[in-house]
Amino acid sequence: MSNLRIGFGVDFHQLVEGRDFWLGGVLVPHEKGALGHSDADVLLHAICDAMLGAAALGDIGVHFPDTDQTYKNIDSKILLKRSMELIAEKGFSVVNMDATLCLQAPKIKPFVPQMQEVIAKLLELTTDEVSIKATTTEKLGFVGREEGVVAYATVLLEKQQSSVR
Amino acid sequence: MSNLRIGFGVDFHQLVEGRDFWLGGVLVPHEKGALGHSDADVLLHAICDAMLGAAALGDIGVHFPDTDQTYKNIDSKILLKRSMELIAEKGFSVVNMDATLCLQAPKIKPFVPQMQEVIAKLLELTTDEVSIKATTTEKLGFVGREEGVVAYATVLLEKQQSSVR
Amino acid sequence: MSNLRIGFGVDFHQLVEGRDFWLGGVLVPHEKGALGHSDADVLLHAICDAMLGAAALGDIGVHFPDTDQTYKNIDSKILLKRSMELIAEKGFSVVNMDATLCLQAPKIKPFVPQMQEVIAKLLELTTDEVSIKATTTEKLGFVGREEGVVAYATVLLEKQQSSVR
Ligand SMILES: [Zn+2]
Ligand SMILES: [Zn+2]
Ligand SMILES: [Zn+2]
Repeated sequence: MSNLRIGFGVDFHQLVEGRDFWLGGVLVPHEKGALGHSDADVLLHAICDAMLGAAALGDIGVHFPDTDQTYKNIDSKILLKRSMELIAEKGFSVVNMDATLCLQAPKIKPFVPQMQEVIAKLLELTTDEVSIKATTTEKLGFVGREEGVVAYATVLLEKQQSSVR
Repeated sequence: MSNLRIGFGVDFHQLVEGRDFWLGGVLVPHEKGALGHSDADVLLHAICDAMLGAAALGDIGVHFPDTDQTYKNIDSKILLKRSMELIAEKGFSVVNMDATLCLQAPKIKPFVPQMQEVIAKLLELTTDEVSIKATTTEKLGFVGREEGVVAYATVLLEKQQSSVR
Repeated sequence: MSNLRIGFGVDFHQLVEGRDFWLGGVLVPHEKGALGHSDADVLLHAICDAMLGAAALGDIGVHFPDTDQTYKNIDSKILLKRSMELIAEKGFSVVNMDATLCLQAPKIKPFVPQMQEVIAKLLELTTDEVSIKATTTEKLGFVGREEGVVAYATVLLEKQQSSVR
């Protein structure tokens, strides 16, 4: 039996005026920001869900409910760190992570290297094992109308072999 | 060459009044249900497609066409069982499965353990290798307007090694 | 550490009259075609992005910017070939690829074998390692209104072992 596991996460947030726009742990200057109970970092949330899913540990809503005042405006890097701890407790580490941001604006390319560094550190990877891609939806749907933002993430996890063989 | 294969499936159904709402093989009490030729179980359909895709066996529409009266109102657990048989005939078994339901309502968390049991049995896995996550779309798009439901599923398959080495 | 990597790509294009409809490297007869700077092949673009993502090589917009006249109306098979070269330069080959097209019309089933052949050749795989699935969105959203088309692709890459151990 393979000691690998795959996971996939998706997250959605509305874009509204008067909110900071956190993406991949980085504050991105923009006239709008993502609405949510936490800092609403759609990219980090998708990654948390992909990791929790690969390890069959439930989802981000189970571990960090938006009805819990503990998580009000919380920095999502703390949620990603906690997700790492949860998978590590089950003996898993991350092999690689690949994410895609769907948003019409702004261009996030200049912020990608910084996002990679933040995420690689939290996932105990090199930046060469952390991928962040971005695409518009070609003006289609709620992303195209700049009403919202979507992120997809996929991860490959590896279970540590027991030292006793 | 690796004996692993990955697959990804996505499925969509309209939500309408007067239909049962089958999700992950479980009847979920709700004022609406998913519309479709079969029982319209969006989660099981996404899993079927991920499995068929990983084994390059076509898609759910190829194997279970909605023009075929055989599949009218059929229990999608039968389709998932058949998909398992199809991948097994090619020498594949499932390593793990991770799915995400996108729906605005109802809360499906109370039904997740039962869905995991149903699906684990069909995929010949433990519930620890079957993940079901759920998220709203934060009121965005057709899911947010409760017009429809979307499911994503990803699977890792492993090809059995020949007994002759 | 596993020598496998996973990647996931998604692409979106508007459907408009007066454009050829390229899908998976095949010209599909239809009253509409996908709008874009290149030939707008949504399926090949999702595959490029999945491959680049798995190898943490950036995204299709980084390598083939739509502001570059080099890529004006370019055959996306050239972009996929170039993406293969980019991952090969990092020592990766493709284990398998699984894609899903979301479009309301036309039926693409008759074109799938030809798409598989085109893509398998470019990815240096057999058609048995290349999966192309299709689904409507059951008339939901911009895909259901035939305003656009979406493609998802997932790939498993394998890093060649160094000959020196
Ligand atoms: Zn979120
Ligand atoms: Zn379905
Ligand atoms: Zn494109």
